[in-house]
Amino acid sequence: MIGPDDVRAAARVLEGIAHRTPVVRSRTLGENIVVKPENLQRAGAFKFRGAYNKIASLPRGTAVLAFSSGNHAQAVALAARLLGSRAAILMPTDAPRSKVEATLGYGAEVITYDRYTEDRDALGEALAAERGCELVRPYDDPLIMAGAGTAALELLEDAGTVDTLVVPVGGGGLIAGSATIAKELGVRRVVGVEPAAGDDWQQSFAAGEIVAIEVPHTIADGLQTHAPGVLTWEVGSQRVDEIVTVSDEQIVDAMRFAFERLKLVVEPSGAVGIAAVLNGLVDSPRTGIIVSGGNVGADRFAELLA
Amino acid sequence: MIGPDDVRAAARVLEGIAHRTPVVRSRTLGENIVVKPENLQRAGAFKFRGAYNKIASLPRGTAVLAFSSGNHAQAVALAARLLGSRAAILMPTDAPRSKVEATLGYGAEVITYDRYTEDRDALGEALAAERGCELVRPYDDPLIMAGAGTAALELLEDAGTVDTLVVPVGGGGLIAGSATIAKELGVRRVVGVEPAAGDDWQQSFAAGEIVAIEVPHTIADGLQTHAPGVLTWEVGSQRVDEIVTVSDEQIVDAMRFAFERLKLVVEPSGAVGIAAVLNGLVDSPRTGIIVSGGNVGADRFAELLA
Repeated sequence: MIGPDDVRAAARVLEGIAHRTPVVRSRTLGENIVVKPENLQRAGAFKFRGAYNKIASLPRGTAVLAFSSGNHAQAVALAARLLGSRAAILMPTDAPRSKVEATLGYGAEVITYDRYTEDRDALGEALAAERGCELVRPYDDPLIMAGAGTAALELLEDAGTVDTLVVPVGGGGLIAGSATIAKELGVRRVVGVEPAAGDDWQQSFAAGEIVAIEVPHTIADGLQTHAPGVLTWEVGSQRVDEIVTVSDEQIVDAMRFAFERLKLVVEPSGAVGIAAVLNGLVDSPRTGIIVSGGNVGADRFAELLA
Repeated sequence: MIGPDDVRAAARVLEGIAHRTPVVRSRTLGENIVVKPENLQRAGAFKFRGAYNKIASLPRGTAVLAFSSGNHAQAVALAARLLGSRAAILMPTDAPRSKVEATLGYGAEVITYDRYTEDRDALGEALAAERGCELVRPYDDPLIMAGAGTAALELLEDAGTVDTLVVPVGGGGLIAGSATIAKELGVRRVVGVEPAAGDDWQQSFAAGEIVAIEVPHTIADGLQTHAPGVLTWEVGSQRVDEIVTVSDEQIVDAMRFAFERLKLVVEPSGAVGIAAVLNGLVDSPRTGIIVSGGNVGADRFAELLA
């Protein structure tokens, strides 16, 4: 199981490569609430942290393959380019256009699959074996979790006292890494937020073991996982205190709030933490919220808010 | 005429009060182009810098009055509140709803006037005299100019070498302060950007003296001034190298670019610098762009981009 030193080691790998995103505040959100806008991270999401940390650990020039609903794809594509590796990315056929284009823009090869009928894990393993390249998993990998946790480390270094940390939960890489460093640094509660339609983590917490659900239909395309990862669950089940859920409507309201009050473009998955706080699901005097990403096209944004 | 030390003095006044906004980059915009996003400033625009610098110079508790198409209003309202002063704001009847609401939200009194028929300067002077309060001008004041210039100072401190600085021009407070410190710090060219419909500065440069135009109709509501200020012209005519103009369409494209690539919400006036660079109007290897503000509602944004 990863520990705080793995997150610190990742921070050293990422120094000068990943952006140190700022922490921002809004009076309307609350005097003692800080937001870590990872939408301002390279490739538009926290995913770059884990992808770079992972690929940097491989022998120079190793070809990589990844499967992703979007942000991990762009992250792997960019990290591979920076590290001189070729990247191939398996993306669902219904991935947002802007994410596919960005991935191609970073010079990766894109291979599509049907999210609702094909098993991406099996497909990914098979392709990686066939091509002899390294599979970079989106979350269930110690180096990916540790890399993601550096977002929380920076938040806690830059924000002053934080009592509760609020983190979006998809596969669980971000919350596993974040909870690991947060508990070390004295954060009392770590709260994960999922879309209500995709409450696999909440159900798993209730059952005390990994529960798999149908692939959820939600606007939060980055959080459409159907079950916690094996490794992220091992960490998350021990270090995360609570999972709350928000509706797609609450997510849209949070995106509008981020736009108008924080002047930040936040994608649906990225807005779940703000949604949880705006709807009173997190009761804490000093809260840190990780906004995970901002990869949403302007037209899609307008459509969601209409 | 203000000098670099006035900008440095303002920076000391603002330290720990104004946000030190980050500098951000986008590969798509250019490897050596840095953006200073003052949309992330308190009250959503660079205007807070000048307003606070000015009001902090008055005897504690002095009531203030301001006239503004929006961002200066919010800036004065917030700065006054922080400094324990009452604020009344004259706003045009067609000011964006979001800006009026934000001003009221900061606890200021709002008085409306017709931008196209009434003379706001005369109205402001009369009201200030009648009420015995201090008029806080939007740009034509040494403390306002010096405060605004701190945005450029921070950009230059944080960005490494900048050859050319690109700055939105309305009344000219931001560019006057920015050019003053930029030339001191070795910037070769300072380029102002106006909406094409409101080219009062460009015409003034061509004439070698202040030229007044009709109040321009443009989506860039923060840049609808009809003539340079007397003091801002004195500084700008000596320290600014060139004025370029952009169309409303180019402004909308720049807003979309900021949204999708920088993940930043930028209002029309704030986007003119990005528009100038995207359209090849600035030829420089190392460019710094000040994005002046982000106060645009989500619905208005969607409407502009439709």
